Amino acid sequence: MRAAIIHGPGDVRIETVPDPQLHDDGDVIVDVTAGCVCGSDLWAYRGIRPTPHPHRIGHELVGVVTAVGAGVRTLGIGDFVIAPFDLGCGHCQSCRHGFYSACETVCLVGATDSHGRPIDGGQGERARIPYADASLVKVPGPIDPLVIPSLLTLSDVLPTGHHAAISAGVDSSTTVVVVGDGAVGLCAVLAAARLGAPRIIAMSRHAERAQLARDFGATDVIAERGDAGIAAVREALDGDLADCALECVGTDIAMDQALGSVRGGGSVGFVGVPAGGSQIPIGTLFARNIRVGGGMAPARRYIPELLADVLAGRIDPGLVFTQAFALRDIAAAYRAMDERTVIKSLVMS
Amino acid sequence: MRAAIIHGPGDVRIETVPDPQLHDDGDVIVDVTAGCVCGSDLWAYRGIRPTPHPHRIGHELVGVVTAVGAGVRTLGIGDFVIAPFDLGCGHCQSCRHGFYSACETVCLVGATDSHGRPIDGGQGERARIPYADASLVKVPGPIDPLVIPSLLTLSDVLPTGHHAAISAGVDSSTTVVVVGDGAVGLCAVLAAARLGAPRIIAMSRHAERAQLARDFGATDVIAERGDAGIAAVREALDGDLADCALECVGTDIAMDQALGSVRGGGSVGFVGVPAGGSQIPIGTLFARNIRVGGGMAPARRYIPELLADVLAGRIDPGLVFTQAFALRDIAAAYRAMDERTVIKSLVMS
Repeated sequence: MRAAIIHGPGDVRIETVPDPQLHDDGDVIVDVTAGCVCGSDLWAYRGIRPTPHPHRIGHELVGVVTAVGAGVRTLGIGDFVIAPFDLGCGHCQSCRHGFYSACETVCLVGATDSHGRPIDGGQGERARIPYADASLVKVPGPIDPLVIPSLLTLSDVLPTGHHAAISAGVDSSTTVVVVGDGAVGLCAVLAAARLGAPRIIAMSRHAERAQLARDFGATDVIAERGDAGIAAVREALDGDLADCALECVGTDIAMDQALGSVRGGGSVGFVGVPAGGSQIPIGTLFARNIRVGGGMAPARRYIPELLADVLAGRIDPGLVFTQAFALRDIAAAYRAMDERTVIKSLVMS
Repeated sequence: MRAAIIHGPGDVRIETVPDPQLHDDGDVIVDVTAGCVCGSDLWAYRGIRPTPHPHRIGHELVGVVTAVGAGVRTLGIGDFVIAPFDLGCGHCQSCRHGFYSACETVCLVGATDSHGRPIDGGQGERARIPYADASLVKVPGPIDPLVIPSLLTLSDVLPTGHHAAISAGVDSSTTVVVVGDGAVGLCAVLAAARLGAPRIIAMSRHAERAQLARDFGATDVIAERGDAGIAAVREALDGDLADCALECVGTDIAMDQALGSVRGGGSVGFVGVPAGGSQIPIGTLFARNIRVGGGMAPARRYIPELLADVLAGRIDPGLVFTQAFALRDIAAAYRAMDERTVIKSLVMS
């Protein structure tokens, strides 16, 4: 089959790779309907994370089950499924508490399983998915093609934005600042609005993204950064700082912006991959009593409730996809993300 | 009057200092009945924090109001009061949310106010206390002398231990590991028991402290540290890790012990002053979805509910004081803390 391989900075190609096979009883094979490029894929694409040898890339996908292992109980051939980007066993202590992302044998789509065997990525024609019963979420058919982009956001960016909001304790009483206007940041705005936050301040200096933030429920957009950004938050909130901030980038600058935007006793939910250099300064947390939580989202935990809202038409997170590419055009899909000419690239397999 | 002055490592002396004066309308003067030595005082005593010039020290006290500023509404001469170690204005956004410790003009007993004027310490005969209405808690008389040690713990160590537990989300459904067997760690055990935690594992290798931990409600005591300590936690919890850990030391070793003792998606409440070198490793938080909160305790917020339990005899936190010293013997009070021949030194003024 064909799938994306990253060779080094700026170099992602479609190549022929082995067809996926069932390895474990809990595996299924999924025929990928759509995948996409994630902001975190850009860490390698931009050379910020090294690529010592070529490897598969892409971790978001929706598709149709074409084969099931002997131990799979809840899925059958022909089911349309959403694959969370992180796959938990469903049985260990972390999974039992709903933290699939901290599973003791967690696997990432596009990486390897706990036995070191490759799991196929989301930028390819087919994928082996382990822990299928515990991980995949079946979508009742028939599938409206127009809803596929929104279903695809459930693979990562919407649960990740939602995790930032949940980790920060966002509810109908909290004011919120969202740092980061990528697809995750925009989904964090949507999640905060869905949770009822009365004031949601999106930090963006990009007109198209700022507009989508407003469409997703942002009540304010602030272009300033650093101390000027914090002053603008205070101006918007009548002299106060926010109760919660959602850090959706992964850089030190973004984390500082988030920490500086919340009041004493406030909280920061962080989901930006810290490959960008973000740190958590303990002195700031100690002196200002700021709580920090988040990390890799347990996507599976949140998909059912978010899916219900997508299928009911209450939310339309698929708007983060501003351009679709054929799989063979993967290089263009990455370039568009890298150059910010799109918010997020959808890839049709 | 006489008060303690630290001159450098190992050198704390009682000297004559100016009598405190009312400066602001919100000030009161308190005649100190009892003060004590805090584990955090040892950072300077041990030279871990530099002492570039001699200064007052000690931040915990209970005593009797002897003078009130013109703007004080809730306190009168003769009132017996507990002074929280950190004094908040009561009006700023942080204070309105109960985070007095993150007040925009927070003052520390024994340090200086927001105008740079000295606030007297708890190791001395008398003290000026700013923000008196917002900070001091009156104890209804008559005062039983036997309860004074427990009242004195409400100045810092019990609210601080309680803050660790609250910040970690301890409740009647959570298993808890407490790292640190000083007075704060022991009070954290007491706080966790008071909140109903069904399993409380105290980490201690000191027989007297381990016994007090059990008296305060610890169900298990583990002497091992590092990986062996984590393995012992798993053994105690039938293979699981704890839901919550309370870091009550302030060193990297203690923070690592706390982070390693909790399950994926668990939480760490930290109250150890990070002068000991503790850090919060963002990669661990990201990968394991561990939440971290805590910092300097908003003591004032917690004193009323804890005081009610002290006065009703439901808790006896004063047991952390294993020896009392006269103010003139302050050097011996520090030496006993430093050499761990006492758990906590009480100082009678």
